[in-house]
Amino acid sequence: MEVTVAVPKRVDHEERRRLIAEALWRIASSRGLEGASLRDVAAEAGISLGQLQHYFSGKDEMLVFALEHITVLAEARIRERIMALWRPGGGSGAGSDGPSPRTVLRECAAEMLPLDEETRTGLLVGIAYFVRAINDERIRRHAKEGQPKLRAFFAEQFREAVERGEAVPGLDPEMEAMLLIALTDGLTSSALMEVITPGEAMELVDRHLGRLFVR
Amino acid sequence: MEVTVAVPKRVDHEERRRLIAEALWRIASSRGLEGASLRDVAAEAGISLGQLQHYFSGKDEMLVFALEHITVLAEARIRERIMALWRPGGGSGAGSDGPSPRTVLRECAAEMLPLDEETRTGLLVGIAYFVRAINDERIRRHAKEGQPKLRAFFAEQFREAVERGEAVPGLDPEMEAMLLIALTDGLTSSALMEVITPGEAMELVDRHLGRLFVR
Repeated sequence: MEVTVAVPKRVDHEERRRLIAEALWRIASSRGLEGASLRDVAAEAGISLGQLQHYFSGKDEMLVFALEHITVLAEARIRERIMALWRPGGGSGAGSDGPSPRTVLRECAAEMLPLDEETRTGLLVGIAYFVRAINDERIRRHAKEGQPKLRAFFAEQFREAVERGEAVPGLDPEMEAMLLIALTDGLTSSALMEVITPGEAMELVDRHLGRLFVR
Repeated sequence: MEVTVAVPKRVDHEERRRLIAEALWRIASSRGLEGASLRDVAAEAGISLGQLQHYFSGKDEMLVFALEHITVLAEARIRERIMALWRPGGGSGAGSDGPSPRTVLRECAAEMLPLDEETRTGLLVGIAYFVRAINDERIRRHAKEGQPKLRAFFAEQFREAVERGEAVPGLDPEMEAMLLIALTDGLTSSALMEVITPGEAMELVDRHLGRLFVR
């Protein structure tokens, strides 16, 4: 027999923020965020406008939260992908062989392309935010903070490839990091527009990477 | 002394459409098109909503027109740029030397980057349209028609470079066309977000092209 203990109702704020973020994603993937109001998001999340405003005072703040949430999820997925590439049994001892920089970069690019529904939704939220950022300096300042981190990580991979003798001669890690990000970005737009398939986009990333590495 | 002849008032429809397109561009470059209504555009163009609706039944139709207008202007600018590259005095006779495929591709890419205010505005209109197209299949179908033309032109340039022995061995014109478009697209987004300067974007295009050509 179960014993039910009466506890005072307590709102789980983290849980509610997550519910709101998920409502945002559903709207993003079905009809787009551009025309969506705070009221629409509250309705989709099944809460009142007042409750929503307790967490977010405006749409931009809400978009920032949704984007950060997506970034955390994406980083976790990338980490998982990379971990899965470590050679089984090679994890003990000093000589364990991690994936090559080329493989790490490829996996990161793959994670940025709309190859599945979750990434696609994340991209749509990102684009809604991007469009607002272009027209608003305050948002742009915040939005810009994210890219240098990715750029630094990519540059680090390219630098390691140079040190390991795996890169073509004369490769500039900083420039190649920016080029790969821009290329993946552009291919993503084309894939979202269905000008190319996500598979074709991946093939093009491979062609690009193939030019940068000697192995 | 001037003679004034009374002529019946006639609305110049082409002129009015142009006025509307320019109103759209002004809105695009100042506060963004996402939240702009037909009424806003009419007010900016200095005409009534009813007059506007005589030309465009909806926002998407208006965006299509503005985009097409921008495309025509961009094509004219590219043609002008390319014409300016023909060697002076080399235009007569059979042996006239046109610009190399590499130069033509570089000029086209430059024209696509937000290096001046006009291109920037065109891009903002394009992005507003892109965002709508992602969420609406009917608009997407129309939007997709533009890219194959550019892709075919780029592929043709790459093919010519292969024939002239100016491209690196094994270059695939179709794939390189798509890669260059995607790369320019992505660099444009980064430049609009002020993550890189338009000048840096151009430098990255040059680095990319430098890998594809032997001269």
